[in-house]
Amino acid sequence: MRSITQLTVRYAETDRMGIAHHSHYAVWFEQARTDYIKELGMTYSQMEEMGILVPLVELQCRFRQPVQYEDLLEVEAVLTAVSRAKLEFGYLLRRKGDPAILSTGRTVHGIVGRDLRPLNLQKAFPQIYSMLTQAVEAL
Amino acid sequence: MRSITQLTVRYAETDRMGIAHHSHYAVWFEQARTDYIKELGMTYSQMEEMGILVPLVELQCRFRQPVQYEDLLEVEAVLTAVSRAKLEFGYLLRRKGDPAILSTGRTVHGIVGRDLRPLNLQKAFPQIYSMLTQAVEAL
Amino acid sequence: MRSITQLTVRYAETDRMGIAHHSHYAVWFEQARTDYIKELGMTYSQMEEMGILVPLVELQCRFRQPVQYEDLLEVEAVLTAVSRAKLEFGYLLRRKGDPAILSTGRTVHGIVGRDLRPLNLQKAFPQIYSMLTQAVEAL
Amino acid sequence: MRSITQLTVRYAETDRMGIAHHSHYAVWFEQARTDYIKELGMTYSQMEEMGILVPLVELQCRFRQPVQYEDLLEVEAVLTAVSRAKLEFGYLLRRKGDPAILSTGRTVHGIVGRDLRPLNLQKAFPQIYSMLTQAVEAL
Repeated sequence: MRSITQLTVRYAETDRMGIAHHSHYAVWFEQARTDYIKELGMTYSQMEEMGILVPLVELQCRFRQPVQYEDLLEVEAVLTAVSRAKLEFGYLLRRKGDPAILSTGRTVHGIVGRDLRPLNLQKAFPQIYSMLTQAVEAL
Repeated sequence: MRSITQLTVRYAETDRMGIAHHSHYAVWFEQARTDYIKELGMTYSQMEEMGILVPLVELQCRFRQPVQYEDLLEVEAVLTAVSRAKLEFGYLLRRKGDPAILSTGRTVHGIVGRDLRPLNLQKAFPQIYSMLTQAVEAL
Repeated sequence: MRSITQLTVRYAETDRMGIAHHSHYAVWFEQARTDYIKELGMTYSQMEEMGILVPLVELQCRFRQPVQYEDLLEVEAVLTAVSRAKLEFGYLLRRKGDPAILSTGRTVHGIVGRDLRPLNLQKAFPQIYSMLTQAVEAL
Repeated sequence: MRSITQLTVRYAETDRMGIAHHSHYAVWFEQARTDYIKELGMTYSQMEEMGILVPLVELQCRFRQPVQYEDLLEVEAVLTAVSRAKLEFGYLLRRKGDPAILSTGRTVHGIVGRDLRPLNLQKAFPQIYSMLTQAVEAL
């Protein structure tokens, strides 16, 4: 499964170089992740209410081409791996209507409980684990 | 009582106009508020652990002169009013070593518990209420 | 004229109180302003390319009800005043499908050139001045 | 050469998980980079005025341990590589007074001119190129 998230670069996201500041890409990827999970049929808010939190343990971004204020962008998100203790997502950033990839991203997430301690997702929430596993297999 | 907080404008805080984006002033004022409370002899983290939260109900900023990347700034913060249900702070922004006021701010805060419902501070935490009241009187 | 901008609260926009941090409202209002100008038939990017910049001189927000991660919001923006040297916008924040006003905002903008010095808009860009004036009159 | 930058986690930098949001680490690393360049004897503002811009082409962060509001942190920054077209920095994040590494980072920067096109730093600014090269050698 793949999700597509549209967003428009905000003025506040630009910097004095005239382009979107690199720190916002992680926020856009997160917005794409939120949409990906929604397409799976639940919301990330619900996951957190159930006691499943997925803080980042790793972030990687490659910035190929800068983007500007008011650019209409599309983030493609895909869940690339699930294990008992980790999730991994991949991201592609494009301008809407243009196949050129402007940026790529990858995030690795720990799976923890409300106390921020590791959670065995397969054991604690087998249905969600199986749903995520199927999404990866359907890549 | 007055507190002074020093900060240097971050690159990420600039926008494509080449100046610090206005949305960051509220963050700087908050940093100054954190320091103000520390000077009172407690921390805002501790207040939250005790169950005292002070979300904003009002924010006002006047931007007289823009500031740039790497500018070394000083925020002067002062608690201007305390009631059972509200706090009010005032802020002055200057460049370090220059008395000219670049920006002014004012925040009004509700006093609520962990459930975000109003808390009678005077009743629930009389010592903290009295400490804040004295800080206002010593203005 | 009134514009409506939809947005979903981002995870990164929440704070440890569990609600959207107040500093992001100014960014949402700005996004609404961008859409308002687009509905007038130009873009704010184009205005800046022509040499018309509108930095904030004043910001006011009232926060009545907090909003949470994944809340779908609508910002209504309206240009409330235009003079030779200033613009003024008003904002209303609601949850989509709910008439309750969660927050209100007001921004006042100076009109300056690329050098950040005051620009007489009526003289320098009479057509844009007249378009903005008509938008205010059609309030 | 190594630089150390101190910073206190801001309230606005926390998220609803109660920890600092991962997107801010890139901003802290940037603040550390600003200090590193200052210790070399110039400022990054001056570099930009000369026409040397260093936008990110790659960002990597590993988050080992979360950090909280009001935590006093130290970012150690080091320039790890310089070529005609690229710079590479490494970062270590610790709590002040505690040797445990909470997070690591790495940024790769293109070297470009004001038009965002590649700049041969060695040719265009031999003195700056040599200063940076010496900083790497003195690692």
